[in-house]
Amino acid sequence: MSGEAPERTLKVAMLGCGTVGTQVARLLTERQTDLALRSGARLELAGIAVRRPGHARPGIDPGLLTTDAEELATRPDIDIVVEVIGGIEPARSLLLAAMKAGKPVVTANKALLAENGEEIHGASRDTGADLYYEASVAGAIPLLRPLRESLAGDTVHRVLGIVNGTTNFILDRMHTSGAGFSESLEEAQALGYAEPDPTADVEGFDAAAKACILAGLAFHTRVTAADVHREGITEVSPADIASARTLGRTVKLLAICERSEAGVSVRVHPAMIPRSHPLASVGGAYNAVFVEADSAGQLMFYGAGAGGVPTASAVLGDVVAVARNRVAGIRGPELSTYAGLPVLPMGDTLTRYHVSLDVDDRPGVLAPVAEAFARHGVSIQQVRQASRGGEAQLVIVTHEARDAALAATISELQALPVVRAVASVMRVEGEGDPS
Amino acid sequence: MSGEAPERTLKVAMLGCGTVGTQVARLLTERQTDLALRSGARLELAGIAVRRPGHARPGIDPGLLTTDAEELATRPDIDIVVEVIGGIEPARSLLLAAMKAGKPVVTANKALLAENGEEIHGASRDTGADLYYEASVAGAIPLLRPLRESLAGDTVHRVLGIVNGTTNFILDRMHTSGAGFSESLEEAQALGYAEPDPTADVEGFDAAAKACILAGLAFHTRVTAADVHREGITEVSPADIASARTLGRTVKLLAICERSEAGVSVRVHPAMIPRSHPLASVGGAYNAVFVEADSAGQLMFYGAGAGGVPTASAVLGDVVAVARNRVAGIRGPELSTYAGLPVLPMGDTLTRYHVSLDVDDRPGVLAPVAEAFARHGVSIQQVRQASRGGEAQLVIVTHEARDAALAATISELQALPVVRAVASVMRVEGEGDPS
Repeated sequence: MSGEAPERTLKVAMLGCGTVGTQVARLLTERQTDLALRSGARLELAGIAVRRPGHARPGIDPGLLTTDAEELATRPDIDIVVEVIGGIEPARSLLLAAMKAGKPVVTANKALLAENGEEIHGASRDTGADLYYEASVAGAIPLLRPLRESLAGDTVHRVLGIVNGTTNFILDRMHTSGAGFSESLEEAQALGYAEPDPTADVEGFDAAAKACILAGLAFHTRVTAADVHREGITEVSPADIASARTLGRTVKLLAICERSEAGVSVRVHPAMIPRSHPLASVGGAYNAVFVEADSAGQLMFYGAGAGGVPTASAVLGDVVAVARNRVAGIRGPELSTYAGLPVLPMGDTLTRYHVSLDVDDRPGVLAPVAEAFARHGVSIQQVRQASRGGEAQLVIVTHEARDAALAATISELQALPVVRAVASVMRVEGEGDPS
Repeated sequence: MSGEAPERTLKVAMLGCGTVGTQVARLLTERQTDLALRSGARLELAGIAVRRPGHARPGIDPGLLTTDAEELATRPDIDIVVEVIGGIEPARSLLLAAMKAGKPVVTANKALLAENGEEIHGASRDTGADLYYEASVAGAIPLLRPLRESLAGDTVHRVLGIVNGTTNFILDRMHTSGAGFSESLEEAQALGYAEPDPTADVEGFDAAAKACILAGLAFHTRVTAADVHREGITEVSPADIASARTLGRTVKLLAICERSEAGVSVRVHPAMIPRSHPLASVGGAYNAVFVEADSAGQLMFYGAGAGGVPTASAVLGDVVAVARNRVAGIRGPELSTYAGLPVLPMGDTLTRYHVSLDVDDRPGVLAPVAEAFARHGVSIQQVRQASRGGEAQLVIVTHEARDAALAATISELQALPVVRAVASVMRVEGEGDPS
């Protein structure tokens, strides 16, 4: 590629102009020369659809603003549509309309891809319009392209990810300060790491949408939001954190996608991982995704998972890819779902549990507890007993078993006379991964 | 993409059949169905060029073997050429011949791309033949594709990489066991992590070739092997390691590519990094590359950097990409060198030094030492003094300065009467990166 400025111009329409959109607009202007040389075409921001055109937007040319998003998304002179509105509607209808009008689209919309992925991918397939969405998972971390392309010759069998910075920040604070969930959430809100309504983050909805997208790409199989088992971090207690620490583990909210002979399992829940695991040292609001493939072995991708500027970088990478395709007169890769593997219900997923019990401080307590596990066919890997002043604690880590069998064991333990309380129950992941 | 097997067949010729080639051949057969569905064409291994056809190769059909590599690389029925011979010749001539015959090529050959990159990329540009080489840097870690494509909308300003597993293993052992370089090298050789002739690894040639490829992609600029400043790890002493530890640092062999207003700097040398840096915890023979981009912020890619199977995974990812292009009748992205930045000589590169001096144990020692730094315009960031029984040690860490000024300071220190010996000199990197 030479250093001459290309003559062709491609017009970009942007739908939405919030945190990410403002940065995309700024960078499209500031990096114009570089982007042109990399794309093979000048990229011109030709219109921005917003709800409130009167709203002050420093650095944005008011002449570009319109409230008629559908008109903009389908306007004949537009070459590329960038969607940074988020949420299902109107984003869904606008992307469908844009693709129907033959426009390639770039989106950062994880919720839409998780909820309506089949429809959106179907529209891309039917219309031949490119669909790129690197920014939808783990912000600026290049992750979807490596999964889709670099590992195209390999078989991925597991993806373990910290894909939500808000919850990672909160859990990090709980570990560091010993504070509870509510207090750590307030701190995250005060620092701008959590929204005033934190539901999407702390209940795991955001991570579940990302898990859904990751699993689809990793396993060449269609996975929808409803397939993802989801537990947030609101129930994680200081006792859980302390119990993890005792066993050299750390609590993280993980998005887990696994492939077994029976099918794929996709879930989001808090889990204890060894402190020596590469994911354990991912602190603050950072994201990281650990991938295990048959031949490539263990890989990890680490970086900023959110934020306007990093997310805009990922959007622009996709815009350049789409522009190159447009210049070359070709289209990018379609979603491949040829494997069509069944998605397993959570009860059939193989997991391991960490259980901490407050028990009577007297001999003979372990036997009935061990029997409860045995009755459900759950094998115990590790037991620790500690007692002080009439109170005793029993910490048990199991081998892999069906999640339903583990859950049934917990119910039974709760009813045992020797068990005063089930203080902490959490799944254990990442054992056997490298330190 | 549907689940139907494609009808078209693409014939693959493989040049070389060593550690990587054997695995590529095995996986092409074992993963035939998956690869076909992902490529849109059946991939058939149609010939393997080897020097010794009589050599036993378990799992390889002897009927595929030929000693006439050039005939195979240009045979009319061949659609894709995979080169896993390594080294400059005959790999160079064979790749040029293959591209001249219109064959897309996939190579894992870092030395060739570093030495003859301009010629090889030029041939790809002139003939229109695809050139893919993900396996040439950091084995299975998807790194080149993210740099080239995902970050296409961003500006990379720094790449710090642990890209040689052998030296990382040796330095890791020196840290853990306190052993010297030679002893740790012998251990690495006994375990198969180092070659009988370890020169390419321990002298930094392997890492320099990779740095050259990384810098070219990251900065859209042509960088050749001769541009890379290279120092190996043979001079790293237990005293260096101990001195690093005292200051909370770890010694790693780093490939460093930096972009400043003056140009780009590309170098390979041992450096001290903070123990809290994400690269510090990359142990054993693992590789990791830390990338800093204007918008994306800080990213890290981690995984197995070598080995037949992981490298074969990267080769196959490229074979699938090339096959998809072939099926679509298009070509992949060319190397972009539009930026054409100057490559700075090492003396002009801004670095920081860690210096440990054995000095006289008496007052007034620091003044002449500090004056030596000042005379070369080098500012001191940190000083530590420790003395025991007539011997004293002075550890100095500088602020950033021109490497030439730092080197001149060291020469002057060596001649100072109060300095008994310069015990350790090493550059310092990665301060200010996240922990």
